[in-house]
Amino acid sequence: MENIKVVIWGFGAMGSGMAEMLLKKKGVEIVGICDRNEARVGKDMYEVLGIERGDNQPVIIANNIEDVLVEGAVDVALLATDSFTKGAFEKIKLVVQKKINVISTAEEMAYPQAQEPELAKEMNRLAKENGVSILGTGINPGFVLDLLILALTGTCEEVDYIKAARINDLAPFGRAVMEEQGVGLTVEEFEEGVKTGKVAGHVGFPESIRMVADGIGWNIDNIEQTREPITTNFERETKYAKVEAGNVAGCRQCGYGYVDGELKIDMEHPQQILPETEGVDTGDYIWIKGTPDINMQIKPEIPGGIGTIAMCINMIPHVINASAGLKTMLDLPVPRAIMGDMRDLIER
Amino acid sequence: MENIKVVIWGFGAMGSGMAEMLLKKKGVEIVGICDRNEARVGKDMYEVLGIERGDNQPVIIANNIEDVLVEGAVDVALLATDSFTKGAFEKIKLVVQKKINVISTAEEMAYPQAQEPELAKEMNRLAKENGVSILGTGINPGFVLDLLILALTGTCEEVDYIKAARINDLAPFGRAVMEEQGVGLTVEEFEEGVKTGKVAGHVGFPESIRMVADGIGWNIDNIEQTREPITTNFERETKYAKVEAGNVAGCRQCGYGYVDGELKIDMEHPQQILPETEGVDTGDYIWIKGTPDINMQIKPEIPGGIGTIAMCINMIPHVINASAGLKTMLDLPVPRAIMGDMRDLIER
Repeated sequence: MENIKVVIWGFGAMGSGMAEMLLKKKGVEIVGICDRNEARVGKDMYEVLGIERGDNQPVIIANNIEDVLVEGAVDVALLATDSFTKGAFEKIKLVVQKKINVISTAEEMAYPQAQEPELAKEMNRLAKENGVSILGTGINPGFVLDLLILALTGTCEEVDYIKAARINDLAPFGRAVMEEQGVGLTVEEFEEGVKTGKVAGHVGFPESIRMVADGIGWNIDNIEQTREPITTNFERETKYAKVEAGNVAGCRQCGYGYVDGELKIDMEHPQQILPETEGVDTGDYIWIKGTPDINMQIKPEIPGGIGTIAMCINMIPHVINASAGLKTMLDLPVPRAIMGDMRDLIER
Repeated sequence: MENIKVVIWGFGAMGSGMAEMLLKKKGVEIVGICDRNEARVGKDMYEVLGIERGDNQPVIIANNIEDVLVEGAVDVALLATDSFTKGAFEKIKLVVQKKINVISTAEEMAYPQAQEPELAKEMNRLAKENGVSILGTGINPGFVLDLLILALTGTCEEVDYIKAARINDLAPFGRAVMEEQGVGLTVEEFEEGVKTGKVAGHVGFPESIRMVADGIGWNIDNIEQTREPITTNFERETKYAKVEAGNVAGCRQCGYGYVDGELKIDMEHPQQILPETEGVDTGDYIWIKGTPDINMQIKPEIPGGIGTIAMCINMIPHVINASAGLKTMLDLPVPRAIMGDMRDLIER
């Protein structure tokens, strides 16, 4: 059997990380890359990654996706360009019409049914028409605050209430993330940024909440979100941010899902730099009130960057095997690391 | 759409617990029960469960399975009679030949490929021939020490080593479990019991280890198991067991999976009464050494009885939706609690 053939669209932190991971795996190869960054276009992937090419064919980074999406010669396209379904939609459509499966890192694509039901329907129709499947995934949404919660409820007779928290450290991230999360701002600037949308915080709570609710059969009638500044009592400093005492070290975002007016899903995602400065332990936490109660923690939290990269790659075989259509993590077998030959996981 | 129709074969703690859970769910009904216990045969299920029957039809417990397995009138049979694949095989065959799906609580059936590959092949053939699917599941094997581990590896680029432990309290269990685990014996009696097989300990390590290894693509070349007495320094007493200081409060069972001679999967399942007597916290623990490392705990452990009952019921829709064949938890979507109408989960 030939290698599984992958195209990567978007070669930033996620796209290039996926390439690095794929290069370590057996039975799979990267046959094309598309990126809009002029500094990378025209260069060999190996050069950009700083990896010895050896005897492998060069993979020249294209700026026109039509050059790399060759119908019949690509099994799956990894789309790492957007956070929102609206932004990803036309790209997904283009890929699907070439009869190529798609895995998207766009947070909203983890459950586009939540906020873009019409686009979700259209993607499902397009995927079926072209005999391929589409999946959005990542660490969160995609795993920690949705699929993992659901898996744990699989051991429950009844579920009454779900609380979950992902407490992480933004210190490893760069300037773009600092701006999105409002790190370094005064409280007034943060509040203004939330209003204007400059402080975007976490994208994905409506998707995670809706996925959990749909997964266990709760009819959510309302989803609310809040974004509050996490102020620091001490100066905090990283490579990309310096925060004076009294200013904002991060964004505490909360999401709430209501069923018949009652709070049933309660999620918290405080993201800040150097939380240990004030004794905050990072981690992923899930509490299920039900029969039985479940109290889970992962300490420290599963890292976001590696986690998203791994989820996208590890789902490749499941997406290739899936029946045609728009899929979510609810529809497919559980993701798992691939330590053998990826081709062994493809159903004939 | 009509209710999903379920038969329960075996009406002990698991079978009757599944009935109690099913009676609380929407869109599903129990259409038959078979049990070999003469004290229950001929009685109405509601009477045996001590539950008000109300306007429901009585469900008389049969002692002949042929009386309840009516081809075309049953969607799934829940088989709660055995621990070993060999014991369950003929029963599964009988159900499958009536073109009825099967979910088995037999521990070895969680991954019969591990120790009974020929029977696994034959079950797969029979299931396909009759257009139905077969699944073995439960809390462990079936979830804690296999599926949950695999799900967590889904966020990993690489996995080097897996250690997991399930530390539980046997105090809620009855005399049969006390005997299987050697509770109350002297150390000499325990050692003798391990030799004769009277102290069976936990059934399922070869299945969990093989499922994890196959799931991530490791070629296991050897699986080893040990059973050691957990002695107590203080007297411990429950309703069904009294253990003198110095004697055996439980069985510490370990399972080891080797890849190319190297220990890669290391599992521990110490089961004892009242572990808190000597400061032992119960819980489910998973440590993955890889990229990234993952350190998970669930405290206290997910309870075994409820967990197994819930897993079997919650997998009913997935088993009905599955393509024909012998399935494992690796093949099907993630289990989740069912708080809505079970019929909504059936794909048309």
